[in-house]
Parts: sequence; C-alpha cells; structure tokens
Amino acid sequence: MSFARLLAFETLPAEPGRARLRATVGAEHVNMHGSAHGGFLYSLADEAFAIASNSREADAVALSVSMDYFRAVLPGDVVQARASEEHLGRRVATYRVEVLREGADGEPDEAVALFTGTVYRRPRARGDA
Amino acid sequence: MSFARLLAFETLPAEPGRARLRATVGAEHVNMHGSAHGGFLYSLADEAFAIASNSREADAVALSVSMDYFRAVLPGDVVQARASEEHLGRRVATYRVEVLREGADGEPDEAVALFTGTVYRRPRARGDA
Amino acid sequence: MSFARLLAFETLPAEPGRARLRATVGAEHVNMHGSAHGGFLYSLADEAFAIASNSREADAVALSVSMDYFRAVLPGDVVQARASEEHLGRRVATYRVEVLREGADGEPDEAVALFTGTVYRRPRARGDA
Amino acid sequence: MSFARLLAFETLPAEPGRARLRATVGAEHVNMHGSAHGGFLYSLADEAFAIASNSREADAVALSVSMDYFRAVLPGDVVQARASEEHLGRRVATYRVEVLREGADGEPDEAVALFTGTVYRRPRARGDA
Repeated sequence: MSFARLLAFETLPAEPGRARLRATVGAEHVNMHGSAHGGFLYSLADEAFAIASNSREADAVALSVSMDYFRAVLPGDVVQARASEEHLGRRVATYRVEVLREGADGEPDEAVALFTGTVYRRPRARGDA
Repeated sequence: MSFARLLAFETLPAEPGRARLRATVGAEHVNMHGSAHGGFLYSLADEAFAIASNSREADAVALSVSMDYFRAVLPGDVVQARASEEHLGRRVATYRVEVLREGADGEPDEAVALFTGTVYRRPRARGDA
Repeated sequence: MSFARLLAFETLPAEPGRARLRATVGAEHVNMHGSAHGGFLYSLADEAFAIASNSREADAVALSVSMDYFRAVLPGDVVQARASEEHLGRRVATYRVEVLREGADGEPDEAVALFTGTVYRRPRARGDA
Repeated sequence: MSFARLLAFETLPAEPGRARLRATVGAEHVNMHGSAHGGFLYSLADEAFAIASNSREADAVALSVSMDYFRAVLPGDVVQARASEEHLGRRVATYRVEVLREGADGEPDEAVALFTGTVYRRPRARGDA
C-alpha cells in the first residue's frame, strides 16, 4: 500500500504537467491543536507535485519545496490540491500546487496553503515501465 | 488518534525549544518510486517543529516552511528528526529540523533532508489547558 | 538614496495588493559567471513584494521568502517583477512575484524566476504618514 | 564591475565548501522603512552561497533558495555571511548561510537572517580556467 492510499487520496483526471487530488480530513489526520496536520496537507500537495512532474518523459525527484499555510482545516473538511507547471527545463522543473478547501457545493472556494516545488529530472531508460 | 500516532512517530526526550522524533519507514509509507514518500519525511520533521515551537510560552502556528531532500530512504530504514531553535522572537520564531537516517548502531549517521520552518506565536490565555 | 534607486528600479502603476517593477541588467549587476546576480533579481522581486504588501492598511515586514531560478539573464536584458496577493490575513499575508524577461517588443515573454514571500503585518498607528 | 563590488562586499578567507563575507550597510542600501533592504542582505548571503558552492570541482548554479528574516539592520551596521555545506551530492548540493550582525568588538553576535540554498552542479570542462 502506498502512502497516498494510506491517506485515502483520490486522484482526479488532469492533463500532462498537471495533477488534481482530493482528500477528506479524518479524525486520524489532526495535530495537537485539533486541526489538519501540516504534514497531511503537505503530503496531498507533494503527491500532486509528484504526479504532475512524473507525467513528463523523465523520472522526477523532489529537490526543494516551500509551503505557506493560510488557514486551519478541520476534520470533515474536503481539500483539493491542484498542481501546475511553472517551468519545465531539461534537468529541473518547478511546480506550483494550490491547496483549497471545498465549499458546500463541492467546488474549491478557499485557499488554505500554497506549495512550490522543484524537481531534478532523470531521462527514463528505454524499455522502462 | 493523531496523525503522529497514525504514522507511529516516537517522541524522544528533549529540552524546551528542541524536539527529537523517531520513525520506521513502513511499506505503507512509500511513493511511486518505492522509497519513503516526501510527505512522510516532511510530516516527521513538521511534528518535531510543532513540538519544539509549542514548548515555549505561546501557541505556535506554522506559517512558512522549506524542505530540501538529499537522499532516498527505504522501507525498513529508521529516521530521526531533530529540531532546534534558530530564532525566538515575540511574535515569530524559526526552527531548523534535520532528518537523519540511523546506521546499524542506532546512531543517526546520514542527513536525508533539511527542514526550516517559521511559526506565528500567540500568547496563551491564562487558564488554558 | 534607497537601494531601489541604486539599482535603478522603475515602478510601474499597479492596484492595491499588487506591484510592477522594471529594471535593466547592467554590467555592474553580474555574478562570477557573467550573468545577472541572483541577488539583483531577488532585490527586484523583493521590492515589488514590499510595495505590494505595504499598499494595504498595515506596515508589512518580510518574514520568509523562497526563490526559484529558471534561466540566466544577461547584461542588457530588461526584466519585470509582478507581485500579486496569494493570501491577505490580519497578521500575515503571502505574495507571489514573477520575474520575467522582456522580449524585443517590450512585452514580458519568459519567466526567469519565481519568488514567494510572507510578511508580518503591524497595524499602522493613526496619524502615521 | 561585479554586483559584489558594487555593494562593497569583502571576502574573508575560508576553506573549500565554505565562504565568509562582510559588508557595511550604507545609506544607499535601505528600504522604505529605513533599514537594510531585504535584497541587500540576501545578496550578501547569495554571494557567500555562490563562492562556497563554486569552490568544488563543478560549476554551481542556484536553483532554489529560502530566506528567513529575524531582525532589522540599520545603516552603519556591519554584517557577515557565513556559508557552510549541508549536503554535497554529484548533481546537487545544499548550503546554509547565516547572516550575522557584528557587535562593538567586531565579532558577529546576533543572527539577523538565515538563508538555505540548493545548486545544480555541472562538471567543469577540462582546460577550464
């Protein structure tokens, strides 16, 4: 079982260079203040970053990430992560991932965190899966 | 159950302003490449950051974090996070968290990631739990 | 003379919460590789960040910044920094600043760096200038 | 003239993988609040980062940097930047740079900012200067 499955992340369809994920904050995802753990929100964004950066013709490995937290999220809240490409170079690439809380209508309506990450890209060997 | 318990983080003794945590990478903590998920390592560092920053006379909330990844970590590896205070101000404070892999002798011997985080500090109301 | 003047930054009109700056890379702005110094590009982005964050009803002081570099910029190149608000809270706020190189037509056409910064906000005393 | 010379940075002796720089905050280095511009302090740290990372057998180019600001620095203050290696890999390396203010005795005695930066390393062609 992968970490994404342990945390019940759901992957939504997206074009190459992008990714969209969705998760529900559970009672087992909270920090000492009772809100969603920073690591839970980061993991959702990081998974979107990994999917987006590995959707290109190279294996992408995370080098450096920054994360800014805007608002607390509570158990029962549904959050989405939306990754897009800021820069695609030969050896490195940078992605932006917005973490948003869904409103009552199922549409994301409030930014809760912002993640920016850079990967190192290794050309895939021919015949690789 | 907290997120730290879901991920089986073990808290080791530390002085105020510091924190030390320990975790074993399990099969359920891996990413698409089969190594420890970036979010798992981040969560360990973030929990150390939260414990260290909340050990002072204020409630500390994460504002901004950066994380640099040095090496992949595999299932079965044991990792430690060690948080120390870089700057303690009245309203904000900054912590450094080293993530290290333990060697065969149980001593941390290789840096696998570096986390730097800044919190906003709110004075605790008297009588608070 | 301010640092912005020393580096000949030109401020373009922008709405509250935003800022736009422009600068020409001079021979005195280069690093050891002969391209624009990372500190020169950062300073342009940081000045846009300062203008945007201080355009609200509070004094804003930088807490934490991250910068990703995409491309080298050479002497003679003209660059723009465009700051926008990612999140405006009561005590903290986060801004995104894109650094772009102008093409032959004077329009920005290539991203050269991305800056993300968070400020601490202090209410302005009444009667302040 | 390089940017380091424009800003009158003085390079102090250091071992490979390290760097130490020194600068005096001048009246022309200030921001809109009258203290040292964030870009001035960053440029000093970034120059130390460049010297330290290029002291190894490779050309090093900055990819991603984060900077945390602790205290304001005023005109007349003397600041030092001290770079050290956090991780040296084949293709990437990470450095930590502390920015410190000198006390009356010429010894650095207060941390004013912390910079963490990652470079991409390109092997030097034989015969390179």
